[in-house]
Amino acid sequence: MIAVTILGNNSAVPSHGRHPTAQIVQTDEHTFLIDCGEGTQMQMARYKIKRNKISHIFISHLHGDHYFGLIGLLNSYSLNHRVTELHIYSPDLLKDIIQLQLDAANAKLTFDCYFHVLKEEGIIWEDDKTTVSTFKVNHRIECWGFLFKEKRKPRRILPAMAHQHQVPTASYENLQKGEDFINAKNEVIKNELLTVPNKRGRTYAYCADTAYYEPICKNIFEADLVYHEATYLDELHERAQSRYHSTSKQAALIAKKSSANKLIIGHFSSMYETLEKFKEEAFEIFENTEIAEEGVSYIA
Amino acid sequence: MIAVTILGNNSAVPSHGRHPTAQIVQTDEHTFLIDCGEGTQMQMARYKIKRNKISHIFISHLHGDHYFGLIGLLNSYSLNHRVTELHIYSPDLLKDIIQLQLDAANAKLTFDCYFHVLKEEGIIWEDDKTTVSTFKVNHRIECWGFLFKEKRKPRRILPAMAHQHQVPTASYENLQKGEDFINAKNEVIKNELLTVPNKRGRTYAYCADTAYYEPICKNIFEADLVYHEATYLDELHERAQSRYHSTSKQAALIAKKSSANKLIIGHFSSMYETLEKFKEEAFEIFENTEIAEEGVSYIA
Repeated sequence: MIAVTILGNNSAVPSHGRHPTAQIVQTDEHTFLIDCGEGTQMQMARYKIKRNKISHIFISHLHGDHYFGLIGLLNSYSLNHRVTELHIYSPDLLKDIIQLQLDAANAKLTFDCYFHVLKEEGIIWEDDKTTVSTFKVNHRIECWGFLFKEKRKPRRILPAMAHQHQVPTASYENLQKGEDFINAKNEVIKNELLTVPNKRGRTYAYCADTAYYEPICKNIFEADLVYHEATYLDELHERAQSRYHSTSKQAALIAKKSSANKLIIGHFSSMYETLEKFKEEAFEIFENTEIAEEGVSYIA
Repeated sequence: MIAVTILGNNSAVPSHGRHPTAQIVQTDEHTFLIDCGEGTQMQMARYKIKRNKISHIFISHLHGDHYFGLIGLLNSYSLNHRVTELHIYSPDLLKDIIQLQLDAANAKLTFDCYFHVLKEEGIIWEDDKTTVSTFKVNHRIECWGFLFKEKRKPRRILPAMAHQHQVPTASYENLQKGEDFINAKNEVIKNELLTVPNKRGRTYAYCADTAYYEPICKNIFEADLVYHEATYLDELHERAQSRYHSTSKQAALIAKKSSANKLIIGHFSSMYETLEKFKEEAFEIFENTEIAEEGVSYIA
């Protein structure tokens, strides 16, 4: 299971009580942060996010509404004597920006902070349960989407069958990997007799700030949950295009073309006080759409 | 009259719903901003501050809780197409920090933004009604306090007396400046007969982050309103000293020694969930003390 908690659903100028972009992605074992707009640490406090569990932060691009809260978060980690290492993935220059501000305060972080510069599409982090990949989107400056994917879990052993074929528990790990079992009489018992595949891993695709850009469909194909920005309503699709943003309809079209299961939309322009129309417009094209609401968790 | 509105009363790590330092100072004609911790622009929205009226920002020092919200505010000004020029007074390096973040976003401000580096004590800005001075405090890094002072207003004309002595209105401005009036018969009518002094200008002293430091008393002497930090209670006075902060009692002692009229205290450590004791401890030394509460305005 992957749970995505929205900490900010507004575009660049905070307004109507809405905050700039930040999202918490929780898998079975990890808490990730995507983007970190101004006030993210306060939003974490408001929504009871355990910020010390975060060890990987992914910054899509260096427009301020996606990272101005990062230095404050790092500063607070340090003032609270964090020692766990932290990894930050972003376009170039972020390390310089952080370092200059630390220098100005004559300060040093209390923990090791590793900056990883995003350079090409593909897997940027993985462990035995999860991969995180990045892909290019189409924005005014260099900008990256992120795909969180649970690895397929080990095959599930059928206890009755394993018992019938007298498989010792010592061999269970090999069975889970898909290997056949060879018994004491040197007979081969096919793995398919003893196990069934586990359900497939879930995927969450974060499409960042982007103009309508079909090439991402291949990157996020069949994702269980897709977040796509929807800065404007359809009537302003020209403005959306000129500013490298998307409309609600365009977000829905990407979800449809990539055969997503569910879509959440966000990054709403501060010109909109209410958001119902965003859902209505997307709904016409892709039914399973929800407004990304702050403080709410969405499940992939 | 000078009104000071508190936007943040907490020290470095935002907590208990309290925010890092920022204050709005309003005089008859100007709206100034002192310090600009993370989330200041959201706090301005919450408390209905007209942020476009601000043309001068004073940053006491480059610890993040006093300026991490500045880049977000400038960014929002720019996205809202501000054209009015803005002046920022701070220690060195702030311009570089802002510029690097603008470069990373491939962005340019829509207005002229002038950075003034604080170098020595004295008047740093004035017009015909107000002066702003700066003075050194004692913190871990270079740090400045600010004194806002209304100039004494022009003398007030006594209409009946002016009429009796047949003073033409064309001479009123000279009367207000304190000059005598010479009538058609070449008789000198003493100014004191025709005018009375206006009430003296009010003063507000912002003492920033500082250890207990008596030399500031001369700078803020007889201020109508003093803000002094009080990061800790008295039981932690050693910690206060070692971190170049003050206790509530020390803040009160400064107010007393500088013959202030009224004291507000803030910059409370996040270790304190409630603040009553800060007032109690200060009250023992300086009675007219108030907790600086967010969203509340205090009058000098």
